[in-house]
Amino acid sequence: MLPRVRAAVAQLVAGLGAGASGQPPAERRGGGGSGCSGTGGSPEGPSSSCCRPAFLQLTPEELRRAGDHTGRAVQSPRDGRRRLPWSTGYAEVINAGKSQHNEDQACCEVVFVERRPSPRARRPSGEGGRELDGGRKGFYFHYWALFDGHAGSGAAVMASKKLHLHICEQLRDLVDILQDPSPPPICLPHDVRAGPTEQSRLPLTEDDGEAPNDAVPRFHLEKAVSHESLVIGAIENAFKLMDDQIERERASQHLPGGCCALAAIYLLGKFYVANAGDSRAIIIRNGEIIPMSREFTPETERQRLQFLGFLRPELLGKEFTHLEFPRRIQPKELGKKMLYRDQNMNGWAYKKIQEDDLKFPLIYGEGKKARVMATIGVTRGLGDHDLKVFSSNIHIKPFLSCFPEVRVYDLTQYEHCPDDVLVLGTDGLWDVTNDKEVAGVVMEVLTSYEPNDPCRYTMVAQELVVRSRGVLKERGWRLANDRLGSGDDISVFVIPLGGPGSYT
Amino acid sequence: MLPRVRAAVAQLVAGLGAGASGQPPAERRGGGGSGCSGTGGSPEGPSSSCCRPAFLQLTPEELRRAGDHTGRAVQSPRDGRRRLPWSTGYAEVINAGKSQHNEDQACCEVVFVERRPSPRARRPSGEGGRELDGGRKGFYFHYWALFDGHAGSGAAVMASKKLHLHICEQLRDLVDILQDPSPPPICLPHDVRAGPTEQSRLPLTEDDGEAPNDAVPRFHLEKAVSHESLVIGAIENAFKLMDDQIERERASQHLPGGCCALAAIYLLGKFYVANAGDSRAIIIRNGEIIPMSREFTPETERQRLQFLGFLRPELLGKEFTHLEFPRRIQPKELGKKMLYRDQNMNGWAYKKIQEDDLKFPLIYGEGKKARVMATIGVTRGLGDHDLKVFSSNIHIKPFLSCFPEVRVYDLTQYEHCPDDVLVLGTDGLWDVTNDKEVAGVVMEVLTSYEPNDPCRYTMVAQELVVRSRGVLKERGWRLANDRLGSGDDISVFVIPLGGPGSYT
Repeated sequence: MLPRVRAAVAQLVAGLGAGASGQPPAERRGGGGSGCSGTGGSPEGPSSSCCRPAFLQLTPEELRRAGDHTGRAVQSPRDGRRRLPWSTGYAEVINAGKSQHNEDQACCEVVFVERRPSPRARRPSGEGGRELDGGRKGFYFHYWALFDGHAGSGAAVMASKKLHLHICEQLRDLVDILQDPSPPPICLPHDVRAGPTEQSRLPLTEDDGEAPNDAVPRFHLEKAVSHESLVIGAIENAFKLMDDQIERERASQHLPGGCCALAAIYLLGKFYVANAGDSRAIIIRNGEIIPMSREFTPETERQRLQFLGFLRPELLGKEFTHLEFPRRIQPKELGKKMLYRDQNMNGWAYKKIQEDDLKFPLIYGEGKKARVMATIGVTRGLGDHDLKVFSSNIHIKPFLSCFPEVRVYDLTQYEHCPDDVLVLGTDGLWDVTNDKEVAGVVMEVLTSYEPNDPCRYTMVAQELVVRSRGVLKERGWRLANDRLGSGDDISVFVIPLGGPGSYT
Repeated sequence: MLPRVRAAVAQLVAGLGAGASGQPPAERRGGGGSGCSGTGGSPEGPSSSCCRPAFLQLTPEELRRAGDHTGRAVQSPRDGRRRLPWSTGYAEVINAGKSQHNEDQACCEVVFVERRPSPRARRPSGEGGRELDGGRKGFYFHYWALFDGHAGSGAAVMASKKLHLHICEQLRDLVDILQDPSPPPICLPHDVRAGPTEQSRLPLTEDDGEAPNDAVPRFHLEKAVSHESLVIGAIENAFKLMDDQIERERASQHLPGGCCALAAIYLLGKFYVANAGDSRAIIIRNGEIIPMSREFTPETERQRLQFLGFLRPELLGKEFTHLEFPRRIQPKELGKKMLYRDQNMNGWAYKKIQEDDLKFPLIYGEGKKARVMATIGVTRGLGDHDLKVFSSNIHIKPFLSCFPEVRVYDLTQYEHCPDDVLVLGTDGLWDVTNDKEVAGVVMEVLTSYEPNDPCRYTMVAQELVVRSRGVLKERGWRLANDRLGSGDDISVFVIPLGGPGSYT
């Protein structure tokens, strides 16, 4: 029992444990009960400072070891402690000294989405939608997320504690709609938040004498909207609200910096993988690799950023030009012809250098060294509201987007075996490896364990982390091929898609 | 001989024949000789009004038949007349009455790009770069293009006569650079337009006492730019200059409307397929389909357009909102919740309807019925400078882009057989068929002709046009499966990628 007590104390000290799974927290801000069960309670509740993920249940001694940049011990949920849902594997390691703390954060939760009480509808209980969790109406979603912080860990810590609750909040209005097989209603009547099931039970003559809005399409042109795209919209808006919350609370909660966010949500048979930043998710199915995200960097988002700089030159200050050049131009090169590209181009052409071209390019550098305004190497994520160009008053946030790209994977369309997994990793993993190598490690490790061994996914996660970190030698952390290992924080989830232990 | 004389007269009447292959036209605007050989001469020369492509060599009687909306006779270059380069197949048919003329246009040319004379460099002849075409220094490119006009055929006709000359003009500065295997120079010295071959021949001490600019990279951060991306940039800028020319000359040359443009350029071993609009190109190689373009429509470019409307609301007048709704909102629905999405979203969510949401959505409708500002169904192309929203003063051009997406296919990376082809088609083709069906027809027709029969690609093009047009029955033009055939203009190129007759 002692280690558990220690762990509880450590988490308490770190400011965790604000809510517990299955116990909805008491009423907070916003008028109603939060309606979202899972660690953390309401999205508007208090957050906390730097720590490791709650599910690791680290003792103070383990916490100290996890923070040791020299040893770089790999951390995973231990045998005998609480297992992650679906026997998910997780492993992490701290950076090699790049920053004081491990600025990656992780979260894994099962969240109950309770239908929001409707002020006007009279609902006979037990009809239209499932009753779960002690008579409450709603559904569960499974949630895994990685947050890769920069310039401090505050934003990553807060997002790891709150993003799933924002997603839950956004889904609460959709509880009935998502469980009704008919197409979502285009328009909801006044103040009625629930779906068509609910409406069809309302008398045809409402207060305003109108028939329910969606009984028949009113116009020839009416776009069909899928259930799936409502979930995508909910996730997108949850990211936005998370970002807004960080903006509001950044001073009081001490949330400097920002973070990339990669979240996988399993809901009603489908995976929704939402990515804002340079983390990456892939599915490995029967040896085949299915990319579930793409990275958002100054290079991949060059045209969006240049377009904004072109349309809103005031955002560039007097320091930057929206044009891209392959290198800095020197004043003595004025009048010569230089390669450039603007927001409309993918190719390059020559232009005569003018005074304005001597400004610094908005997008500059290549690969991992590419930067927006010489400052930041990712173009989507949460936070960074105070980020400015060094020794200037030019804000960078207008160029960053907090919106994720959401990809959908229908788990019911394919019979998955125990070796099929979804891998989520921060860039610490992907900087030194690639999809194919990761798939190789996954298959290699899984075959050495029994298919029903619940530890096998943890073993994969650990192996992935170890192989990306490498081994400490005289000339630093080195991989098996003697190349430099990743000196960054590394975090990995390995989520099984089928077989024993799944979906529980 | 008589039909040829007739054809020549018909083309003369139609205002064609401004230049002839191999004979560079005399000096016009711009100071120098045009330096671009091929039909049409200089890009700045006069254009002409509606007619069919010169390479069809139609007699007046044939011209009349080609314009008959009832018969819809398929047109192809005839046996015994000039064959298209590489034995390319081509076929077209007029619409079923949608517009008076066939608003599609086509062009197929072999163009010589002559190096622009450099005012300062002393060039010993016969060194650095090939001498071709009677001692002139340069290279050839092959060119095929389709232009799908709307609201008149003027823009399509002009683009079909001029775009390849703009591309030639853009390539003239690159003649030496593209033929030099070393990386393109990042910066060119004052007034010297040629590439590194040229520079390395200049004395190290130039007028300004500087060493040539690209002898060594001056900065650690210097982006490598490929030869390929210079060609892409040249094509992109050529589209822009073509659009500018249409803008300048639209009044004097009577160029109403606009056009989609799809061009394939074969240059130094690679195909560059440039698309601005909703035409489509695919390669069929060994039965496999390789998409070589994507369509630019209000749906595929929704977020770019919404982003612009959001950043520049003045472009929307007081009539439009940048938000998308699945249908029009009625004033009495104010205060209800409606599905919407903004420029950041791919999914949908509900929002409370406000006064501003009653405006018409910038993007509205689905599939072929999707429109920008209820007016136009394509979002990239040339022309449309005067296009306004019906009975308003709101210009649509700011939302349209004249820039193509350019995809590259390296012909040297694969040994092509005579059945491998690049198919270009206007939307008249693709509206009623798909990649797979087209590939099926290609393979079916090609196998019924000898591999060295030069007519086989024309037969494929004709069959593709006939199958999309269908057969006139009581209930209009019908396909084999009795679905409605395409009532639009249809134009198709079938370009062989290997085998006898190619590359000549």
